[in-house]
Amino acid sequence: MARRSRAARDRQTQIPGAPASPWIKRTLPFFGMLDEEALQKLEAQVDWLLQDIGIAFRDDPEALRIWKQAGATLDGDIIRADAQWIRALCAEAPSEFTQLARNPARSVTIGGNNQVFAPIYGAPFVRDLEGGRRYGDMDSFEKLVKLTYMHPNLHHGGFVICEPCDEPVSKRHFDMLFAHMTLSDKPHLGAITEMSRAQDSIDMAEIVFGRDVMDNNCVIMGNVNTNSPLLVDKVVTEAIRTYSARGQGIIVVPFILSGAMGPVSTAASVAQAMAEAMMVCAFTQIVRPGAPFVLGNFLSSMSLKSGAPTFGMPEPVISNYAIGQLARRAGLPLRCGGSLTASKIEDAQAAYESADSMHSTMLAGANYVLHSAGWLEGGLCTGFEKLIMDADRLGSYQKVLSQGLDTSDEAFARDAYGEVAPGGHFLGSGHTMRNYQTAFYEPALSDSENVESWEDGGSKDMRHRAYDRWNEILSQYEAPPMDPALKEELSAYVAKRKEEIPDAWY
Amino acid sequence: MARRSRAARDRQTQIPGAPASPWIKRTLPFFGMLDEEALQKLEAQVDWLLQDIGIAFRDDPEALRIWKQAGATLDGDIIRADAQWIRALCAEAPSEFTQLARNPARSVTIGGNNQVFAPIYGAPFVRDLEGGRRYGDMDSFEKLVKLTYMHPNLHHGGFVICEPCDEPVSKRHFDMLFAHMTLSDKPHLGAITEMSRAQDSIDMAEIVFGRDVMDNNCVIMGNVNTNSPLLVDKVVTEAIRTYSARGQGIIVVPFILSGAMGPVSTAASVAQAMAEAMMVCAFTQIVRPGAPFVLGNFLSSMSLKSGAPTFGMPEPVISNYAIGQLARRAGLPLRCGGSLTASKIEDAQAAYESADSMHSTMLAGANYVLHSAGWLEGGLCTGFEKLIMDADRLGSYQKVLSQGLDTSDEAFARDAYGEVAPGGHFLGSGHTMRNYQTAFYEPALSDSENVESWEDGGSKDMRHRAYDRWNEILSQYEAPPMDPALKEELSAYVAKRKEEIPDAWY
Repeated sequence: MARRSRAARDRQTQIPGAPASPWIKRTLPFFGMLDEEALQKLEAQVDWLLQDIGIAFRDDPEALRIWKQAGATLDGDIIRADAQWIRALCAEAPSEFTQLARNPARSVTIGGNNQVFAPIYGAPFVRDLEGGRRYGDMDSFEKLVKLTYMHPNLHHGGFVICEPCDEPVSKRHFDMLFAHMTLSDKPHLGAITEMSRAQDSIDMAEIVFGRDVMDNNCVIMGNVNTNSPLLVDKVVTEAIRTYSARGQGIIVVPFILSGAMGPVSTAASVAQAMAEAMMVCAFTQIVRPGAPFVLGNFLSSMSLKSGAPTFGMPEPVISNYAIGQLARRAGLPLRCGGSLTASKIEDAQAAYESADSMHSTMLAGANYVLHSAGWLEGGLCTGFEKLIMDADRLGSYQKVLSQGLDTSDEAFARDAYGEVAPGGHFLGSGHTMRNYQTAFYEPALSDSENVESWEDGGSKDMRHRAYDRWNEILSQYEAPPMDPALKEELSAYVAKRKEEIPDAWY
Repeated sequence: MARRSRAARDRQTQIPGAPASPWIKRTLPFFGMLDEEALQKLEAQVDWLLQDIGIAFRDDPEALRIWKQAGATLDGDIIRADAQWIRALCAEAPSEFTQLARNPARSVTIGGNNQVFAPIYGAPFVRDLEGGRRYGDMDSFEKLVKLTYMHPNLHHGGFVICEPCDEPVSKRHFDMLFAHMTLSDKPHLGAITEMSRAQDSIDMAEIVFGRDVMDNNCVIMGNVNTNSPLLVDKVVTEAIRTYSARGQGIIVVPFILSGAMGPVSTAASVAQAMAEAMMVCAFTQIVRPGAPFVLGNFLSSMSLKSGAPTFGMPEPVISNYAIGQLARRAGLPLRCGGSLTASKIEDAQAAYESADSMHSTMLAGANYVLHSAGWLEGGLCTGFEKLIMDADRLGSYQKVLSQGLDTSDEAFARDAYGEVAPGGHFLGSGHTMRNYQTAFYEPALSDSENVESWEDGGSKDMRHRAYDRWNEILSQYEAPPMDPALKEELSAYVAKRKEEIPDAWY
């Protein structure tokens, strides 16, 4: 195992051509942070919120009609429901399901012991080392879709990797969908900001997959936020009446800044998030029994210095572990966590916070992890370097989760001890020769050279190496194959719909 | 909960005058990564190494005499011992013990559910933003001792926070001990590089604590490495014949770079570390039954690109979780992990790697964590900024470990739901008013301002904020009180011993 040649080292950092594992099949046990008593207390609070406090469904009369028809009692627009009934409805949602990708090798399974990583969602700004911080635009969006497609540690495309602010709000969803569908063949989400945009997403997915496949499979999902505390607005219910009604997936995420949208307590905020998401889950199952649902949780703490949200702190770390246990007991797939930070740039703060956030996300067993790469500034900014840095670390989590500790006979290497004397070394032992090439996760962006070699190479910090790397990846990008007729059909749909809709910038 | 005034914010970042919690009493459960079958396989491998392969004790005839007298069978200098006997000897070591500090409020308990954080140990170089990278010296050493003393999240002073390379090797231990004993009142380690230096450490500790206290308490410990694989040299046995013989603590740490000092396999390396440390533990208990012992593990992976050790990677993360379970089953206090990185500077790589390394160290339940702050370059360099950055993050781990999830009635905040309507906010609720000041961990170095405020403040990254902070902390340093006669006695001991010993620079 002598030091390898420069050529061998260069090969090592080439962009992998073959797709990586399409998602993570976890073998690692979950971290059972809470005992039965604590879990029951949390569940009692969830039930109390469902039954005694209730959750308002606002601005969508059709949603109230659906609830009433199902037998719910309404107090104005507030639903207070028997917790057993809500839990029974939630039990109709699948505990795991597969979202098809247009390339079947990229389809992912969400729920159970499966974990899927997707990039940041919804940032209006982008940042890279050359261009600095600026509004997101379609050019950046397409680059980010390509990078996500190319990176082996991202399993899912997400959707709004940045906001393409140079397109009208009323039309940008067409270009975002078209980019995901043509520049990548990984699974992705669709639009939710308005019911017609949700419908466009469904319609375009139907062009890609065909009606028969779509009738029987999840091929697209929408990600929506409740309006915490305890309020569900029409963005959510209309998305459900579009996605769930068509048998497609919906991810419902209470975003709770403890002390603002929930009590200034992690236990209360976690229970509130469960109650809100379960009430909405029940609604999806009334709309369409068996429709794929993902229970979301996004909890942040607050800085006493600035009143601003903070990330990677002990309270959200603890909330990840707690919600993981609660979601598994409810039998629902979970979205939580991500590589979250309040830092403005790709400095040590960004990395410390992202790593603690993501390590707990990983161990908690989050099944679908939006924001697993690229997040800066509390989600306001997508960093090109951050995306590549986070994604490199995701490879480490993937190995921890999928392999855990190998305790096979080969892993115990007893033959090697016959070859090596006390104080000797295992570098040339048969066991090392058989195993060294696959023994360790090989990060692309961590520099382990000595200081002299590192200085000879220009003393580049991780940001600068990440800048080089994403440019290298982009330069090697080739679009995945696609039937030209299908691409034409998508293109024609986009052109026709864009003509029907006026430009609107807000 | 309006935004707080500048004055209030400044108070928030003041150096805490009161001592923080002297160590962490963990309430969080441990992460049980391995099932009973895997644990038994690992323990069978440990027993096989103890019984069939054996461990050599070299260069110290007295050690072999002690083993023989205790009934061991020797094959040259190799001890192969009945595993039950070794385990029975290990069972005589305390599963937890207290190390006294000269300020009783700083004494720490090591083992069981207790966790103690100490800074980096052994780096020949130091680095800070102003002075760059350079050899460590006594001036840096004293500053680092002061910073460790001042920081509320470091419970223990460690020992060689950097190598004071401007002092002769034969004499620098006097100055390091004198600095720890006079500039700080936190507990610390002593010298081990030579038997006479270990004895000097014991003798100086006896001046501080007095013979009676020292006869009945652990007041100092030595940290030694086995010479992996399967070799224990005289540095270890002589340290034990000095520290353990006097009833003081010893930490024995196999350092295994998998593929070099152990097989290229995490399971084999973990078992080997256990076997080496347990054999040495047994030796300590022969020397003095009941002497405090800490089982160490320091496992790293290797870069295929450079052949160099890597840190914060999946293999050492997994090894932390595994060794935590094994050490608890053996009933021995554990040292493992730390804030480890191969990065040369305080960039995102340093933080990602340190956080993943430390998150797993925390959850694994390591009782004594050397290298929990300040480590750069695979341990070759102590970073002043890195020390302060890591220590800031340790406060987050401290909260996770000591508090977990509060599920008291107050934490469920039911009264607050009577005050807040759906879609409203909890900012002014009675529950928030009662709890917001203690609800969240308040980091000193994470910036959560918006990008405009951050830019107005000079766009400082975490490194630059850390530079400001350690200078601020140092400027507020005041030595803890000490009886002048005691200080004089220590001073006289150092002067006398320095005269007796010739300068030696290697």
